[in-house]
Amino acid sequence: MDDETPRVLEANRSFYAALEHRNTDEMDECWSHAEDVACTHPGWHRLDGWDEVSRSWRAIFTNSRAWRVRCESERALVSGDLAIVFCIENLEAVGGQGDPARMQATNVFRKEGGAWKMVHHHASPMPEVEASEEEDTVN
Amino acid sequence: MDDETPRVLEANRSFYAALEHRNTDEMDECWSHAEDVACTHPGWHRLDGWDEVSRSWRAIFTNSRAWRVRCESERALVSGDLAIVFCIENLEAVGGQGDPARMQATNVFRKEGGAWKMVHHHASPMPEVEASEEEDTVN
Repeated sequence: MDDETPRVLEANRSFYAALEHRNTDEMDECWSHAEDVACTHPGWHRLDGWDEVSRSWRAIFTNSRAWRVRCESERALVSGDLAIVFCIENLEAVGGQGDPARMQATNVFRKEGGAWKMVHHHASPMPEVEASEEEDTVN
Repeated sequence: MDDETPRVLEANRSFYAALEHRNTDEMDECWSHAEDVACTHPGWHRLDGWDEVSRSWRAIFTNSRAWRVRCESERALVSGDLAIVFCIENLEAVGGQGDPARMQATNVFRKEGGAWKMVHHHASPMPEVEASEEEDTVN
């Protein structure tokens, strides 16, 4: 395991903490503010550049209700100043009745000024069906 | 631009050529065959390890009809032995009537034995609506 892996996973956890807290200052702190960052929220087109990405988080936090966010099945690849974390996101409305929403995420981090900053977030909904059912429906 | 970027983009194009050709040998050549590779097809759960990933391509190629695959809006980040390409995939059935399917993809490559091999592919459907409509529906 690369020495930087624990720091990358910590950066990934900070992102999910900011998401759970719906805190724009924390989210700002997680991300690189560069022009080349990108973000694909579930069911959205890709947003390019920090201006678009930061606006999207503000919109999400303004409109969303309190939720618990849990990240599981994390796997990290690290090389030099670039790192990728694959994980599953569980988002559950506080006091809600329904099942948690489950997303698959690919998160990319870049080391900037010694700190790991998010430069890309791609999340998409997990299928509801079991793997064995699903493979029958490949087309 | 990193010196390796053209080679990474070439690896990315080879992946889409293999997809268009529905050729398992070409697809095998594009990928790392390591245990840590992962693949999230649109609407699927994540597949882990080369065994699962290669089986999925075989299933897709067995069941799919001829299509044209075009990759656009490519952007690459490269550091050391790791590279990420974000792009939009257009898949259009040959002789089909409908609009092309559009997917957003995050592709990760790792340099293995001097060659860039795919280690992760995450694709999810693009929304049908325009960005301006979409942002009104964020929740």
